[in-house]
Amino acid sequence: METTVKYLYENYQQLNQQKVTLYGWVRNKRSQKNFGFINFHDGTVFPTLQVVYEESLDNFKDIQKIRVGSSIEVLGIVVLTPDMKQPFEIKATKIQLLGDAPENYPIQPKRHTREFLREVAHLRMRTNLFQAVFRVRSEAAIAIHKFFNERGFVYTHTPLITGNDGEGAGSMFQVTTLDLSKTGKEKTVDYSKDFFGKPTYLTVTGQLEAEAYAMAFKNVYTFGPTFRAEKSNTQRHASEFWMIEPEMAFCDLEGDMQVAEDMVKYVINYVLNTCHFEIDFFNAYVDQSLKERLELVINSPFARITHEEAINKLLASKHPFENTPKHGQDLNTEHEKYLTDVLFQTPVFITNWPKDIKAFYMKLNDDEKTVAAMDLLVPGSGELIGGSQREERLDVLMKRMEEMHVPIEAFEWYLDLRRYGGTVHSGFGMGFERLVMYLTGVENIRDVIPFPRTPNNCEF
Amino acid sequence: METTVKYLYENYQQLNQQKVTLYGWVRNKRSQKNFGFINFHDGTVFPTLQVVYEESLDNFKDIQKIRVGSSIEVLGIVVLTPDMKQPFEIKATKIQLLGDAPENYPIQPKRHTREFLREVAHLRMRTNLFQAVFRVRSEAAIAIHKFFNERGFVYTHTPLITGNDGEGAGSMFQVTTLDLSKTGKEKTVDYSKDFFGKPTYLTVTGQLEAEAYAMAFKNVYTFGPTFRAEKSNTQRHASEFWMIEPEMAFCDLEGDMQVAEDMVKYVINYVLNTCHFEIDFFNAYVDQSLKERLELVINSPFARITHEEAINKLLASKHPFENTPKHGQDLNTEHEKYLTDVLFQTPVFITNWPKDIKAFYMKLNDDEKTVAAMDLLVPGSGELIGGSQREERLDVLMKRMEEMHVPIEAFEWYLDLRRYGGTVHSGFGMGFERLVMYLTGVENIRDVIPFPRTPNNCEF
Repeated sequence: METTVKYLYENYQQLNQQKVTLYGWVRNKRSQKNFGFINFHDGTVFPTLQVVYEESLDNFKDIQKIRVGSSIEVLGIVVLTPDMKQPFEIKATKIQLLGDAPENYPIQPKRHTREFLREVAHLRMRTNLFQAVFRVRSEAAIAIHKFFNERGFVYTHTPLITGNDGEGAGSMFQVTTLDLSKTGKEKTVDYSKDFFGKPTYLTVTGQLEAEAYAMAFKNVYTFGPTFRAEKSNTQRHASEFWMIEPEMAFCDLEGDMQVAEDMVKYVINYVLNTCHFEIDFFNAYVDQSLKERLELVINSPFARITHEEAINKLLASKHPFENTPKHGQDLNTEHEKYLTDVLFQTPVFITNWPKDIKAFYMKLNDDEKTVAAMDLLVPGSGELIGGSQREERLDVLMKRMEEMHVPIEAFEWYLDLRRYGGTVHSGFGMGFERLVMYLTGVENIRDVIPFPRTPNNCEF
Repeated sequence: METTVKYLYENYQQLNQQKVTLYGWVRNKRSQKNFGFINFHDGTVFPTLQVVYEESLDNFKDIQKIRVGSSIEVLGIVVLTPDMKQPFEIKATKIQLLGDAPENYPIQPKRHTREFLREVAHLRMRTNLFQAVFRVRSEAAIAIHKFFNERGFVYTHTPLITGNDGEGAGSMFQVTTLDLSKTGKEKTVDYSKDFFGKPTYLTVTGQLEAEAYAMAFKNVYTFGPTFRAEKSNTQRHASEFWMIEPEMAFCDLEGDMQVAEDMVKYVINYVLNTCHFEIDFFNAYVDQSLKERLELVINSPFARITHEEAINKLLASKHPFENTPKHGQDLNTEHEKYLTDVLFQTPVFITNWPKDIKAFYMKLNDDEKTVAAMDLLVPGSGELIGGSQREERLDVLMKRMEEMHVPIEAFEWYLDLRRYGGTVHSGFGMGFERLVMYLTGVENIRDVIPFPRTPNNCEF
């Protein structure tokens, strides 16, 4: 029977003494005079499988020479080993080398630094750490889709290339088919010759288009790549990353927060269930408070506090912050940390932010000073989600756009959403990599993206 | 009870005489002297809901003036109507206008051309046709994820921005942060000042990176946007579209075809089950052979035939083709159509293509003239999937790259996948929009993408 290591781990108790055929790679090996062990991995499940081979095999000498990283075929018999660490092993009846891995194979069974592994991003998934990271990433993505699909949200593919450079969420990459060695020779660039007949950019958000879809489907979400051309080389920023942006008609800020809370809890629960091997690994080798923290999040109601109250609480704490918290201003990392890790010890939504530090499309509150926005801060990691109720009043929205120098003519279509059957609506955005970092305890965004793009780094 | 039209359609038999609250939009309306009807739609399910209101309501005169497209709140009572076309309706106890839609609202209850609706892409989802298209698109995407996840495939996010311009699948967009009004003044463009320190492009495929992941996880898939900067204005080409690209280690061309066949059948089945209202609509108003064709695909084993045999059969048919089929050459649309619609009347895999018309990474067959490639042709639509077994032999691959002028130095990482534990592996690519067109009968790709991008067209 051709099978997988995953199938064996799930069914070994029924398979004692069964013949099986497996295809995979040598993760590690140990050769003795009359027998040997191979740590066999086929990518289908996190743990390796112990394969034992003995001198009686025809090609025993050749098997002993098989190197770490090689691909092999294994025929053998399942043997239950209830007294050992692994509950079963394979007694090989045949082992065949398929693809060799020479001595210079970079992924040897020893500790490699993450910096080194980033340089071999095409091979690093063959290590325990990156096997675990990228399986969690996959399962978390599936969990997102399941969550929204079960609730009737329509999955919407918003465009990546956009003609708007004024969405206001950050610097943008330009997209062009012009020959850069020829532009700049005239006074102005002739965009009539560019592919789209005008300047175009990589999107920084799918929110505005998602709003259009929410006005037809009530509840929608996007899950796709977004881009930031910011030269910030931090552990938490990448130039290309994936975002989840739900948008809900007939939903106010309270409803928005409820969906965000339900989603975060759903995804954590799902990953704890589907990736227990991986989570155990992270908890043992990456962050020993991981499981405790994730379980706390699942089991706590998320706190809700206004920005004004948050500043008051921070001031009242008398904590010696480097930056004094101020009404009307953004929170610093140290403030966020104090709120989540000391004051609340749970995730906390900060609501009703000063309008001057938030985007033009957020709903102006009756005080005319704050907007119906929310940030979700999580213990140990800071901001995970940002969202808001959207301004549905045409006149207020246009006034805000003027104040903030947003070019109204480019957004006529967006204003139409208020002109024709507009309604209360809300949404939020979550950077998917931030979630994966939170789920794994891995602290550098470069280590949760298969082939990360950052300033001066676009390899592979 | 606040509820949705979807919930009512699924549970109306238990809800007779229940009080409900609904939020949505006026799709159509009819006012009589003493009563009126509203076709109410809330985006949660395809059909509309009939709301009846009578003169006895306080604001009867105002309700009569509510216009098509407006958003409203409806309180009312569920009334079963077993003798009427709709199985139930709502007898309103209160109707409140939330957001008006003035007389110039573009989406009136009449027939609009698809060309007109493309110009209001931010509103067209409020019509039956585009409600149906974009819900099917969403459910088909979910079906893809379910199919691969249930089979243990790891979902992999391959990069969108790439430094490789030689992947060979088509023209590419350049991505830059250089100021185009300033480049071109020196002899060469100084890419050390560009964001990534070198020229970068939007990817045309995630396959090569997916191969790296298959060498660690055995079975992986990508599902993300890809780009083509080709100035071809056809019904079947867009500049930005989504692709599904599975990649499987220890899998040959036979296995590859089996996964492709299983996937296509799974997705069609899933959409027939989850979108029966929508499929019925398409079958009535878009393509009256749609359901029959989809059911044929589900119930037929897909045919398999080599390119050589296909040419032989086409020649033997004596059919008066405009272009005579030729050994060693690509098939024309008329040839594909004859194979699927006349000769086989089922989907058909064409295998073992002449090497000169296929990509460098496809496995060279022992005849050294053909490669282990496959195209899946489907009745009524042509090519849906293209795939191949990949060349795992380092020396053969390098020779093919040289012959086809692929710059080897940029692909050293790709060659590493053959140097270190390489193995037989295969994969394929399916353009997601092609699938949505096939599922809906809609013939223009611009009508299955929320905000399509084509040459000279990047609106919204």
